[in-house]
Order: sequence, then structure tokens, then C-alpha cells
Amino acid sequence: MTVELICVGTELLLGNIVNTNAAFISEKCAMLGLSMYYQSVVGDNPGRLEELLRTARERSSVIILSGGLGPTQDDLTKETAAKVLHRNLVEDKKAKQKIQEFMEKRGRRITENNWKQAFVPENSQVLYNSNGTAPGIIMEEGQTRMILLPGPPNELIPMFEEQVFPYLHKLQPETICSKMVKLCGIGESSAETKILDLIDAQTNPTVAPYAKTGEVHLRITAKAESKQAAYALIEPLEQELQNRFGSLIYTDDSNVTLEMAVYHLLKEKQLTVTTAESCTGGLLAGRLINVPGISEYLKEGYVTYSNEAKEKLLGVEAEILKKHGAVSSQTAEAMARGGAKAAGADICIAVTGIAGPDGGTIEKPVGLVYMSCFCRGKLYTEKNHYSGDRGKIREYAVASALTLLREAVLKYKDEG
Amino acid sequence: MTVELICVGTELLLGNIVNTNAAFISEKCAMLGLSMYYQSVVGDNPGRLEELLRTARERSSVIILSGGLGPTQDDLTKETAAKVLHRNLVEDKKAKQKIQEFMEKRGRRITENNWKQAFVPENSQVLYNSNGTAPGIIMEEGQTRMILLPGPPNELIPMFEEQVFPYLHKLQPETICSKMVKLCGIGESSAETKILDLIDAQTNPTVAPYAKTGEVHLRITAKAESKQAAYALIEPLEQELQNRFGSLIYTDDSNVTLEMAVYHLLKEKQLTVTTAESCTGGLLAGRLINVPGISEYLKEGYVTYSNEAKEKLLGVEAEILKKHGAVSSQTAEAMARGGAKAAGADICIAVTGIAGPDGGTIEKPVGLVYMSCFCRGKLYTEKNHYSGDRGKIREYAVASALTLLREAVLKYKDEG
Repeated sequence: MTVELICVGTELLLGNIVNTNAAFISEKCAMLGLSMYYQSVVGDNPGRLEELLRTARERSSVIILSGGLGPTQDDLTKETAAKVLHRNLVEDKKAKQKIQEFMEKRGRRITENNWKQAFVPENSQVLYNSNGTAPGIIMEEGQTRMILLPGPPNELIPMFEEQVFPYLHKLQPETICSKMVKLCGIGESSAETKILDLIDAQTNPTVAPYAKTGEVHLRITAKAESKQAAYALIEPLEQELQNRFGSLIYTDDSNVTLEMAVYHLLKEKQLTVTTAESCTGGLLAGRLINVPGISEYLKEGYVTYSNEAKEKLLGVEAEILKKHGAVSSQTAEAMARGGAKAAGADICIAVTGIAGPDGGTIEKPVGLVYMSCFCRGKLYTEKNHYSGDRGKIREYAVASALTLLREAVLKYKDEG
Repeated sequence: MTVELICVGTELLLGNIVNTNAAFISEKCAMLGLSMYYQSVVGDNPGRLEELLRTARERSSVIILSGGLGPTQDDLTKETAAKVLHRNLVEDKKAKQKIQEFMEKRGRRITENNWKQAFVPENSQVLYNSNGTAPGIIMEEGQTRMILLPGPPNELIPMFEEQVFPYLHKLQPETICSKMVKLCGIGESSAETKILDLIDAQTNPTVAPYAKTGEVHLRITAKAESKQAAYALIEPLEQELQNRFGSLIYTDDSNVTLEMAVYHLLKEKQLTVTTAESCTGGLLAGRLINVPGISEYLKEGYVTYSNEAKEKLLGVEAEILKKHGAVSSQTAEAMARGGAKAAGADICIAVTGIAGPDGGTIEKPVGLVYMSCFCRGKLYTEKNHYSGDRGKIREYAVASALTLLREAVLKYKDEG
């Protein structure tokens, strides 16, 4: 079954916003085994939208539209889609009531415009919206299915997950299941090379790599007549990935992030951690604190951007800084050792490097980052060299530091 | 003049990556005064791409394509575009040499595939690529202009900025200039309301708002026969925005970020700063350290996620924490006062709040964030309530804290 996506909004054509909805919807459709051949963006222009809808009807069986369901005169997606399918708009009482509730709850004044949003094409399935005033709509007409969704991601995402995904799932004669295996500590091309034979030979299940900063995610997808049968197809491939990547796999749960995986390990082993950051300057602590509940294991962190701060807060000896420089394995190790002591934590992960654009030399170029993890008396130290701008270098350093921290905690188990 | 964008890549249709190229190119085209009515995404499929190119030729005068210029068999954008314009591919010696240089410099082995990238449609303008092996291409045929660009943003962006932007600029009979006025401390809808009369009345110059987290950017664009004349049109409108928004404007330079504006103020007034973060957990320090050179003014920062850390590192009295709780104006103020003292800094910006998803109560719901800025003896304290998930709440809190810090430093000048 083919699906086509049309995003409506002049703000997309002007580049005011990035089209994250397209990536979200496309990924979900791929998970469902739907083939998407076209995505389009048009402005809030009913003539052009109508033309595009007619073209889409000829080439795709499911047409998903996002945006243009707002209360203003410009918002004409619903009107245009109804016109193409020859339907009138009728008031939906429940939609009207939901709009009223939504506005009252937020103490906002309801304007006449808002009631426009309670009108839906006749004989359509209404997708009620808990996060905004625009209901979504599903229309079926012959071989065509048209799905209209509100543009704001905080409305579109839950509506898709809760109402559209199950609807599309039912259209598929087969059950499609997928599992995400997430790796850290390996680059995308190395990961891909390791499974090239699997990718080349694949039909069902399939495996596809998704590159993230400092991580590679592998999605295994299988089609079968039942959930159980699909997972039975996935299982041997997952086992094969497990054999090939071993402890580089930090989770097989798509909802678990790298920092969450680290948190689970800390919790399992009841180890506390602190951070000592120079070039990453708080971003590493910031990522760990993404995890609700980390407060039991991370009580404090240090941003020690200057040499004085490294001495004062972490007890790094002036001698080390003078002899080896702030960006050195010796300083990274002293920061890690000193940070753990200062915080009274089992572990300290320390990062020091040159994020640029200035400050690089031939011996110590921009992008050179040392990191060290002190874990109950043991030190794990790493030298990395990243390319990219200041932002990218810091982002990669944070991902590597989380990976090093994870490895140290994993090893603690092995030896403990 | 109308422009249309076609992004080629199966990875976009599968949702593996977000189409940031589309937003980048669209914004640049809007700056140039080019009207974009359509954006499309197709996979690496020559049949569908050809059909789309023929449609685009009928409705747009400039067609920009991104992606599909790689060395593999799948990459067929160049071949397809050449076919539509009835051109043969010929080897470009300079492109070949550039590919060789690029690969050798990186110590990579050149495969037979790579030489495919040295072939370009005859009679085309070649855009040499300093950041990859795929040259870009411009073809002119009757009223049609086709511009082919490599997909990776680190290749596309510099090629666009350096070669395509000037090319498109020349096509425009008029000079188009723009200026970005950036605001903080005001929401998008309030900002828009304040200039609704200007937006409604506008023809040349125009002003358009772009919403960012905790910021609003207003782009003024003017068309004229010369640069000087365009800026002469911009100037009174910028003055008008200055009158209406006053010190909420933190810069009129599109390259300056909020943290850079704060850095410039700290430098101007020679004030040092430190951070004391609870719920933002390092992200505020992380943003300040985005600015190269901040090290002179920010030497250290504290992540004090637990009550113990607030007492130990910042000297917050146990009494205050007990009586008012960790999320209170009293604690925020004690953190700010204590942080400045601990770091020996002129200023400390402190943040404490409930980022969720748990930990909220009726009196102190998720999203409640207190922040306080101590600046040479004065305290500026703010209570905010954000909606969204944990990530959004923390991101907004960081933006507000930077705004509060900026205000405190600005006021210091007034009173100094």
C-alpha cells in the first residue's frame, strides 16, 4: 500500500521552521511497511493544494496531510480536501464541545473563528484533539484514504500515535513489528560494514541503520501474519546482531536513550557519579539530568572551565597543568580522580579539550578532546579527535563521554 | 521569479533524517525575494524524479535539487536532470582533479565509482565542492534554470552560500537586503501583536517574525536598485522596531546569538559570572560556553542537583531548603548569592525548578521554575511556568535564565 505526505504551510516554504513532522510521519509509515514515494510542501493556497491532491489521488492510496487546520481564513486544508472528495462540511457537536473545554481550561477567550474548527466533512471519522482546537479527520472514498492532521508537532504526534497509527496498522493485511537495537562506541560506516551481508541478503526481516550523534541505531522490521510470528522472525536476527556487536549494544528498547541506559546501570550497581567538564561545559551533566530519577546517583557536577577552577574545585595540581597543559590525558585523569573525591562519588567522568574555533596548535589541534572516567579506584582514559564546528565537537564529546562512562560501569560489574 | 525545491533521497522518505536542507534553502530563497510555491521529496528513483522535473519545469523558473549526486549506482539525480534537458554527460577535468585531491588529503582510497562524480552535463556551470567529492551543477535551458546540489548539509550549505546565493542574487533585477532584529523576554504572539499594523501595511520593506525557543527574530527585508537604497528603506523600520521593543532587542546582527550578546555585555562591563543549576543541570553553563572567549568571564559553574550539593557547594542554608523547599524563590536567591561567593564572581545566575515528569504537586506543578540573578549585591528573581515535556521545560528555562542574566547586566550599567 502506498502513502503520500502533503505538508501545508507557508512557514515551511519560507524556511521559518524545519519540517520535523515529515520525518516523524515517514518513520512511522516505514515501520508500518507502507511505501512512501512522494512528500510535498505547499503553502496555504487552495488552488495549488487542490491540484496536488488530485495528482496524489492518482498515484497513492493513502494521503496524509498536515497543517492548515487552524482557525484563520488562511487555513483551508479541510475545505480543499472536502471539495476534492465532493463532501460538505457539517458541524460536529463533540468537536465543538472539545474546543470549548480546551479553551476554557486555559482561560482563553473563544473567538468566532474557533467554531470554524468544529466543522468537518460529512461521513468522516473525526480524530479528537487533546492538545489543541483542531480535530483531525479521516475520509475514505473508493480506493483513497485521506488523513488530515493539525500542523503543530505537539498536537500531531500524539494524534498520530494514538489514532492514526492503529488505523493504518489495520489497513495492512500483515502485522509489522519492529525492534530498535541501539549501539554506542562505533561509527556508522563500521557498523554498516559489519552487517553488509545481512543488509544485502535481507527480505524479511530487514535491518536498517539510522545514524545519530555518537550512536548508531539499527531497526529490525518483520512482516508476518501475527505479532508472535513477526517477533519470531526478528529474534534470530537480533541474536545475530548481539553476536556481532556484543556490549556495544546499549539497549533493544526504542524508548531508552544512552543516558537512560547509563542511569539503569548506575542504579543496578548502586554507584554514584559526578561530572567534571571543561570544553563540554555542563552539557554532559545536562544530558545525564535528562533522565528523571538520576538525582539519586548524580548529586552534583562541576564546570571547571579555567585552570584555577580545575585546581580549586577538583584539586588538580598546578604542576600537572603546567607540565602537560589543560588538554592532556594527565589533566583529564587528575580531574576525574579529584572530582570523585570532591563530590564523594564512586565515579567521576571528566572531559577536557579544544572545541575551537581558536586555541588549536599543531600538537593540540581543534577537536582534540581527552576524557577520563574514574570508577572506584580505576581510571579509563581516552583520546579523541572530532571534526566539525565548536557545537559539533562538544556534542560528540558528550556522546563519547557517556559511552566511556557506560563502559567503566559495565567493567565494574565484570570485576566486582 | 519562482523557485521550486526537489530533495532526492530515500532516507528522507523513510524518515531516517530530518530535511534541514529544505528549511535552509527556503529561508535563503525568501531572503532573495524568490517565491517558492512547492517543495517535494522523492526517493532515488529516476522515473519518479523525471516526472517531477517535467512538472516543475512547467510551473517554476528555477528548480533546485539536493541529493542523489553520490558515487553509487543509486545516485541518479545528475543523469536524470541531464536527460530532461537533453544533455550528455562529459568529464570535467577540474572536477576530477578536485576529487583526487579531496580523497588523497584524507588518505582514502579512490574507487572506480568516484570518477562517475567527475562527469557533468555538457554546457553546464560546475560548482566545485571543497567539502566532498560531488560537484554541484547549474544548467540554463530557455526559461529554466536547474541547480543540482549535494545532499550532505556540510557540503550543501557552503556551496549554496558561496556559489548559488550570488548566482541567484544576480538573477534578481533588484537588490534585496535584509536585517535580523532579535528579541528575548517576549513571546511570539505578544511580539506579533505589537507589530501587527506594520505587518498588515507592509509592501517594501517587509518584516516577518521567526519563533525560536524563548526568542523571537524579526527579519526586515527590502528591495531596491542598490544596497544603499535597500538599507535606507530598512533603517526607518528598524528604528520603529527599536522604539517599540527597546531593550528587548539584544542584537541586529543575524550571526549573534543570545549567549554571545550576554558575553559582549560581560566583556563591556568586565563582570565575571558563574552558574548554579538544579533542574537545568549544566545546560545553562553549556550554552554560555558555546561562546569562544567566554572563559575570561566564566571560570566555573555548579550543577547542584541535590539539596546536599546546594548546601555544600553554594552554602544554601538547610533552614531555607526545609522551610521553602528546593523549588522556591528563597532557594533560588540563596543559590545565586552563595554561588557568586563560592566562585568569587561578580554575578551568579541560579535556576531551580520541577522539570517533570514526576515531582509536581498542586502548589508546585511540573514546569514551575524559579531563577535568580545575583549581580554585585543586587538580586533579580523570577518565577516562570513552562509547559511541555522535561526537555522543553529545561530548554525554555535556559533561555529565560540567559534573558534574566542579560537584564541584570544591562541594569548594572544603568546604575553603575
